[in-house]
Amino acid sequence: MKKIINNPNDVVTEMLQGLAKANPNVVYAGEGVEVISRKEKKSGKVGVISGGGSGHEPAHAGYVGKGMLDAAVAGNVFASPSPDRIIEGIKAADSGAGVLMVIKNYSGDIMNFEMAGELASMEDIKTASVVVKDDVAVPNSTFSTGRRGIAGTVFVHKVAGAAAEMGKSLEEVQAAAQKTADNVRSMGMAMSPCILPGVGTPGFDLGEKEVEIGMGIHGEPGVSREDLRPAKDLAEELVGRILADYDYSGSEVAVMVNGLGGTPLMELYIMYNEVEKYLAEKGIKIYRAFVGNYMTSLEMAGCSVTLLKLDDELKTYLDYPSEAPAFRV
Amino acid sequence: MKKIINNPNDVVTEMLQGLAKANPNVVYAGEGVEVISRKEKKSGKVGVISGGGSGHEPAHAGYVGKGMLDAAVAGNVFASPSPDRIIEGIKAADSGAGVLMVIKNYSGDIMNFEMAGELASMEDIKTASVVVKDDVAVPNSTFSTGRRGIAGTVFVHKVAGAAAEMGKSLEEVQAAAQKTADNVRSMGMAMSPCILPGVGTPGFDLGEKEVEIGMGIHGEPGVSREDLRPAKDLAEELVGRILADYDYSGSEVAVMVNGLGGTPLMELYIMYNEVEKYLAEKGIKIYRAFVGNYMTSLEMAGCSVTLLKLDDELKTYLDYPSEAPAFRV
Repeated sequence: MKKIINNPNDVVTEMLQGLAKANPNVVYAGEGVEVISRKEKKSGKVGVISGGGSGHEPAHAGYVGKGMLDAAVAGNVFASPSPDRIIEGIKAADSGAGVLMVIKNYSGDIMNFEMAGELASMEDIKTASVVVKDDVAVPNSTFSTGRRGIAGTVFVHKVAGAAAEMGKSLEEVQAAAQKTADNVRSMGMAMSPCILPGVGTPGFDLGEKEVEIGMGIHGEPGVSREDLRPAKDLAEELVGRILADYDYSGSEVAVMVNGLGGTPLMELYIMYNEVEKYLAEKGIKIYRAFVGNYMTSLEMAGCSVTLLKLDDELKTYLDYPSEAPAFRV
Repeated sequence: MKKIINNPNDVVTEMLQGLAKANPNVVYAGEGVEVISRKEKKSGKVGVISGGGSGHEPAHAGYVGKGMLDAAVAGNVFASPSPDRIIEGIKAADSGAGVLMVIKNYSGDIMNFEMAGELASMEDIKTASVVVKDDVAVPNSTFSTGRRGIAGTVFVHKVAGAAAEMGKSLEEVQAAAQKTADNVRSMGMAMSPCILPGVGTPGFDLGEKEVEIGMGIHGEPGVSREDLRPAKDLAEELVGRILADYDYSGSEVAVMVNGLGGTPLMELYIMYNEVEKYLAEKGIKIYRAFVGNYMTSLEMAGCSVTLLKLDDELKTYLDYPSEAPAFRV
């Protein structure tokens, strides 16, 4: 294992320390709490938080900033944050108007965010939540009942954060976030495994020319292993599976081509070029596109494609300024 | 070789097509020209261009945008763009006030940009150039006489682009860019090789625990191969070599921790955390920090550290808004 780390047990703390030092607009809550939150707190604004296991950077701490998340709660690598971490995130985000929790659909996250919500209610902080299950690959998975939440979650952050910044109520922010979650679908593929710092060896093997279609962001099984094909075929396979699941025909969409950490930006742009061509063939209009590393799996090679159906309301939220370092609009 | 591509010969064209489709503020000049330029052209503004071999994305096309580059010229992977491509970049960037060319110090780039400058003068376009040689690793290298230009080049783009946008003359923009080049130093290390799409096999081998200190962004030899050490030691080695070369004591600096493409953001933040601590020990004040993939080598794992000594003028340029997708300020 070759990683730029010190002790594998300290990676989350040291990463968040580094992130907070590099970003003067956020505060790091300290070791064991592992919460990054906005320095500026606007009274009476709905707070928006998210979180989950580490190893998916820039998710979620990179999305903390004006117009997006108010706080992000980090678990250990690929492990849900505990309720007592999450309640600290809720408190950091609360300014009297309640807090929306954006949760990826993994059993540990669901349970722990729910418990944290109960803890919050005991402290008279109102919470609401939206669960994101955008991954169309498999109906259930290793760590989830129902579909997994992956890169589409970033669009939910964006919409919820914009709605909150625009002064919407908790119910309105939740509704906008839920609408986003309802209209977003993703599908990914992996070309190489990743190595957890505390483990030191790859979580799985793939043959020299093999890719796994539909693999999860923790290396959970996908739908098939097959030989690597040209970018055009891969784009059609991933987008095709999304279109088979949800009818985007005639609609305007936001597109994300997301790198899993180890794939060069060159390849993500080539992938986007093919996705764009395929969507054009299908008569689906692209309103805005995002190409880069948004929700990763450490150094895993591969990518995912996400489509979000837009209406005027969602366009307004998507275009609203965000100062989060990993999602500047 | 597992890459998300179609024909290896088409990677540059298809990447730039994808990039231009995803970014409505730029134009792609077409196959064989391989120039990305700003759609909006402000009359009488100094143009700023850069370019070089592909494979270093987001360098340089990702830096095209208001407040940064007016055009970027792409060569094939790890190969200098030809003079007839560069002259197209110059023309795209020219709006009557001359064009500054920011060149990384590689023999092919120097020769081809120089020839393009001569072609431009025949068309009555005034050019000036700044050569960046920020890599302190080795005095000469495989593709360069003198030091190599690496991630520090991005700071030169930023300063020149801001100065141009603020209405400075070609001489003033050149002087600001030259001041940046004079005060910037970088040092990198590689942990894994990269694979050129047209070649298909790694350019070099590294042992299971081995890193190469000072390796170039094309896999050119560095200063030593050694066992991977903790992030703290790596930070001290890289920054130590920079400080041994240039006296940053008592100054304020911009810092960049740059990933080479295959290194997770988690590790870059851990690295930055150590760099920050080491600079604090040395009494060097960090004005602003940048952590991410700014100048890559395809999927190479590793990172570089860059320090730029700032004065009030350079701070103004560094803080000036940039709308380039890969460097939003």
